[in-house]
Order: sequence, then structure tokens, then C-alpha cells
Amino acid sequence: MSKNRVQIFDTTLRDGEQVPGCKLNTEQKLVIAKRLDLLGVDVIEAGFPISSPGDFTSVEEISKLVKNAIVCGLTRANKKDIEVAAQALKYAKRPRIHTGIGTSESHIQYKFNSTQDKIIERAFEATAYAKKFVEDVEFYAEDAGRTDNEYLAKVLEQVIKAGATVLNIPDTTGYCLPDEYGAKIKYLKENVKGIDNVIISCHCHNDLGLATANAIAGIQNGARQIECTINGIGERAGNTALEEVVMIMKQHPYLNLDTNINTKLLYDTSLLVQRSMGMVVQPNKAVIGENAFAHSSGIHQDGVIKNRETYEIMNPEDVGVTESSIVLTARSGRAALAYRAKNVGYDLTKIQLDDVYPQFLKFADFHKEVNDSDIHHLMELNHIHKTNVHI
Amino acid sequence: MSKNRVQIFDTTLRDGEQVPGCKLNTEQKLVIAKRLDLLGVDVIEAGFPISSPGDFTSVEEISKLVKNAIVCGLTRANKKDIEVAAQALKYAKRPRIHTGIGTSESHIQYKFNSTQDKIIERAFEATAYAKKFVEDVEFYAEDAGRTDNEYLAKVLEQVIKAGATVLNIPDTTGYCLPDEYGAKIKYLKENVKGIDNVIISCHCHNDLGLATANAIAGIQNGARQIECTINGIGERAGNTALEEVVMIMKQHPYLNLDTNINTKLLYDTSLLVQRSMGMVVQPNKAVIGENAFAHSSGIHQDGVIKNRETYEIMNPEDVGVTESSIVLTARSGRAALAYRAKNVGYDLTKIQLDDVYPQFLKFADFHKEVNDSDIHHLMELNHIHKTNVHI
Repeated sequence: MSKNRVQIFDTTLRDGEQVPGCKLNTEQKLVIAKRLDLLGVDVIEAGFPISSPGDFTSVEEISKLVKNAIVCGLTRANKKDIEVAAQALKYAKRPRIHTGIGTSESHIQYKFNSTQDKIIERAFEATAYAKKFVEDVEFYAEDAGRTDNEYLAKVLEQVIKAGATVLNIPDTTGYCLPDEYGAKIKYLKENVKGIDNVIISCHCHNDLGLATANAIAGIQNGARQIECTINGIGERAGNTALEEVVMIMKQHPYLNLDTNINTKLLYDTSLLVQRSMGMVVQPNKAVIGENAFAHSSGIHQDGVIKNRETYEIMNPEDVGVTESSIVLTARSGRAALAYRAKNVGYDLTKIQLDDVYPQFLKFADFHKEVNDSDIHHLMELNHIHKTNVHI
Repeated sequence: MSKNRVQIFDTTLRDGEQVPGCKLNTEQKLVIAKRLDLLGVDVIEAGFPISSPGDFTSVEEISKLVKNAIVCGLTRANKKDIEVAAQALKYAKRPRIHTGIGTSESHIQYKFNSTQDKIIERAFEATAYAKKFVEDVEFYAEDAGRTDNEYLAKVLEQVIKAGATVLNIPDTTGYCLPDEYGAKIKYLKENVKGIDNVIISCHCHNDLGLATANAIAGIQNGARQIECTINGIGERAGNTALEEVVMIMKQHPYLNLDTNINTKLLYDTSLLVQRSMGMVVQPNKAVIGENAFAHSSGIHQDGVIKNRETYEIMNPEDVGVTESSIVLTARSGRAALAYRAKNVGYDLTKIQLDDVYPQFLKFADFHKEVNDSDIHHLMELNHIHKTNVHI
């Protein structure tokens, strides 16, 4: 059975870049766009062309540069936005306009001071207008996460009629629980006429720590595109992290889902984005954090030394990390000390290990980490010499 | 209807502290333990007493200090570990021993070189032995996430017979998807004799970014304790983040779940742990990150200025953050510029705003952020003076 392809829509340069402190100039954006294309993303959302002259130029230059991916520009549901986006995208081999409007009660009432019917009209018109410029039009129903499903279905039916190719169902405020977001996608899949001819897209925010889980729940219920960013950056608590959803699909073969991502480039791409934007991920960031493959507790280290699969569900090399590490701390057991001592040349006997281990623990209790030179020092104190190398 | 109480089991000082670079001395641990008690956690896992002399002392001192929470010590499934833990906990008002053993095929075969039947025996014996010292015994089935449900049920039935009060179902490697982890809890709830008299606990890891979602899926299927850490720190990609699961339950009243946490202390507690351990969370960390309540895109800023609920599902004050912020960047619209200008004393007319806005955009395109002194500079250039203050 051939796997179901899930499109990866990267919005690092749009939803990611619009974050305090993350602003990039056009040259920096081009470097990242090129890398995203190499990484194998299906869509690069390159910016929001009408929002500023810099953004317009960036979308235009990225359109010229990108070889494989679709290049996408964001708009609101009005003619001017759409015209400017179309102009910025004119050099793109595969252009997409991403237009839309808020559909939740809160958005309709407070943001637009409008009515449900008028919003449907504007959604239809914007989609139809974008369609005059490009074949590929994605429609977003902003705050879909808090939009009544029945009304949402009505809006979507109309934009499909207007020619939308992709329907984006954003959980704009990051409020949904995975079962709720999954049920929403299922409802739409079952109740919107014509939905089988378009792609449903998940755009989730991380305000409650659920952006990754929600996107996966969407895919499990019939969506086939995930909007995400490298390192999960984005407005407030950020977006779904590209590296997380990609590895979830890769590590769960029974889901029967596939992406076009070359996972071996994930770590380097993460570093590139961290450095360009000055947004450093925390050490315990999933998949690409500094500690993601570091083992420090004694129980875990013993397990990993005996058989890596005991505590590792991913091969670090699969995401471009050279190797997992056994970090020596006061939590490390004898096996870890022996393992690390061996790495720097000491093949300890059981008696030697029994002698050294309590000293190691005392030392480690006063230091955060025991490094290679500390190991040499401990061995010297105990008159233990390096084992001869047998070639 | 009274809400269902979910116990919050904090393991910042055990699973969190065993991370490279996070080691604390006893004094630092006491400060954190005191704060956790004030925060309202139900259980403080204070350490793994047999693992090092420092850990023993910490558990002992925390036991003396803590007034409300249960104090818990970790052990492996052997007599020596349990005896040492019992000794470390002897001053605790409400002591708990947390013992257990690996139950997955990988753990039984590679880590213990044992058989399924022998593991059940060891699990029973360890629980029964711990019960000689304390009334409250929690059993962990390590790698339960990858353990066959039928066998797991057998193990748990035996440890309930041996006197376990809490059953911890760890997804040790962070592999489960939320629907899978939820289904596992449901299976156990329906198939383990005596399980209604004990508490099921979720202990999830974040290797694929799903630790929070998995814990919530567990609770939705009948678990009533979550093991978590402040800031989600922990082995590799960390554990379920306390602040995330607590706010998910608080912000979804229809779940009918309640905790004892004083959420207004979440932000300060997060800072305390960040500073003590030198583990700084990323700006886009959910709930307590620097950007968690920062709005920078024009569309979002307009919405928030009109009505906060448009883009905010939590009141920042509920987690101890003073206010949400409107950050000025090239993404900001006129409303945001007017809002921030007003904050520093300029009540702009529409004409003034039309004059200043294009200059603001050009300036912002070359700078990551526009701050208050930049605003003053822009106003000066345009000969706009501060509005008189009307008292």
C-alpha cells in the first residue's frame, strides 16, 4: 500500500518571522528559503507582501530563487492585498495566494463588526479574486478552532465553489484539545460538499503546548497538509514544530503517512534558523535540542549502553545529530563511568571500578558534570593507568 | 457537580534535576521544594535516595521542610533501594515510596535479561516490601508506553494486590501518540481488577513533542495524577510541563477537572527554576515564555487592541504575568502604532498617523523592534508634540 503524502507547508518566514526579535532582512530570508527548498518542504510561505516594502521584496526575491517548492504569499480578504501578493509572486514557478478571514463569533463581532452572511460573501469574493491571478488558492478561516462547525462548513463550501484548492483550519489562539481539533476536521471531511477535491490544512498554535498534537490529530482525521515552522517559532508560544510532526510520522509507520522531508537536514536547518533569528531553542527542545539525545540518569545510561533502543526511539543520525551522549553526573551509575572511562583509554577492572566509583560520586555531587579531564584526574588519584591500545 | 480532582506530582527535583547541567545542591533544592509546596502541588518527588549521598540528604531535608505535599522518593525494585528511600523519608509528614521495574519487551530482555513472569514477581515483592515502611506506595511500570497492554494489566493486578496506592504508566521514551496513550489508560481502567481503588498516574516524555497532549489524553481516559516538571525540564527532551497541563484544565471548564495549583505563582516559579538550574526556556515556551503573551503581527495587534479575547485565551495575570504586550515591528499596523504612541503620551489624529506610518514602516524594516525612544524620535521628526494631560 502506498503511503499517504502529507504536504509540509513551512511558515518560518511568515508566521515565524513576525515574532518580536525575529526580523530578518531579505538576504537572510533567501538563505533560509534555499535551505527549506533543499530540506524538501512542499510550500514556503514567504511573507505577507502588503504588510511592508521589505516583505514585498522578500516574497519577490524568494519567488525568483526557489526551484521546487510552491511559494506562497499571505493576504487579508481584500482586493488590494491580493493584487500586491500576486505581483510579489509573479516570478514564482509555482505561486500560491493564501487569503482568508476570521470566522469565529469573536472575530466577526469584535474585529469586523460584521455578520455571518457578510463574512461568507467576503470569503467567496476574496477567493474568486485571487483565482484570477493564480491557479492555487489557499483559504484560511481565521480562528476556526473557536468557530462553530456548522457555520464553518458553510463558509468552506462557498470558498470551494470560488475555486480554493486548500482549506486552512487554523486554531489561531491555540485553544483546542487534540480530540476536539481532530473531531472538527472529521466533521468538515464528512459535511462539506466538494471537500474531497481539496486539501485540508492544519495550522495550530502552541499557547497550551498542544500545537504538535493538534496537527497530528488533524492528519489522523483526514487533513493532508501541516503548516509549521522550524523550531516551532511563531506568534506568542509559536506554531507546530516542523521537526516534531515530521519525526512523528516517520517513527510511526503504522500511520501510513509520508512527507518529502530529508530528515537528515533537520538539525542543521534548526541551527541556521536559530542563528539567523537569534532565537535559541531550549536544551530540552524535542528532536533538535541540545539534550534531546543526552542520557544522564544512571538507570537510563545503563539501558542505553546495553541496547540503545531501551531509551531511544529515534536514531540521532536520522535528524542529522552525530551521536547520542552519555553525560556523567551524580546520577550516573558504574556502567556509565566505565563506559566513559573506556572512551578516554581506561579499561577498568571490577575492583578498580569499585574503588573509584564512590570518589566519583562525591566529586559529582559538587559539580554539575564530570568531563573527560575530571576522569583523568580521578584515575591518577587512584593510580590507574591507561590501557594499552591493541591494534 | 463537583469537579474531578487531578493530583499534580511534581518531579522537577528528580526527573528534572537529573539532566545535564541542572544539578542543584541541597540548599537550592530546599528553596524549590518550599515554593512547590506553596504553589500547591500534591506530591513532590524529591530525589532518588540511593543514587548518591547528596540525593539522600536532599530527600531527608525536604522531608523535614515540606508542610503540605506528599514527599516521594524513587527506588528500583530491590530491597536496598527501598530501605534507603524509607530512611531518607523518615521525617516526612506524608511519605511515599515510588518503586517499579521495566515491563516492555526491550526492558525485560536487554536491561534485565529476565522473563515476564520473573518481572511480575519482582514487581510484587518490591511493592510489598515498600509497604512495610510506608502506607503510600506508587508503582511504575517503566516503558509502559511500549508494553503490551495485556501483560501490563497482569503486572498491575499483582502490584495492587501487594498494596500499591498509585499506578504510574510511563511513556518512558516519549513514543506514544495521544490517542494511543489514552487508549492504553482506558484499557487498564477497564481490565485491571481493583484499579478503581487506586490512582492511575501519567508520566510522559517529550521526545516527539507530545508529553503534554499524552498526559491530558490519559486524564480524559480515567487517570487522576500527572507527573510533570516546571518548564517541562527532564531527561532528553523533558517531561510534561506542569504549567501547560494545569492551564489546559483551568481553561477548559467542560473537562470538569480541577487541581490544587495557585496558577498566579506559575510565572515566578518558572523563573526560580530557570535561574537555579541555568536552564532558560525559549521565548516561545507555552504559558510562561517571554513571548507567550506578546503580539507583534498587525492583524493580531488590531484584534487585541479591539478586544483581548480575539487572540488571547488566557488572562496573563492568571499565570502571574503582569500584562500582554503589543510589540512594534514591521508587521504592526496603524492601530498598534497609535496604541503604543498613546501609551507614551501622543494622541495621534488620523492625519498625523497617515504621515508617520510610512516612515515607521521604513524604520521598522531595518530594525527588529521599534521601542519607546524610537517612537519619540519619529514624533519629533514629524513635529508632533505630546498631548496635554487632562487630569
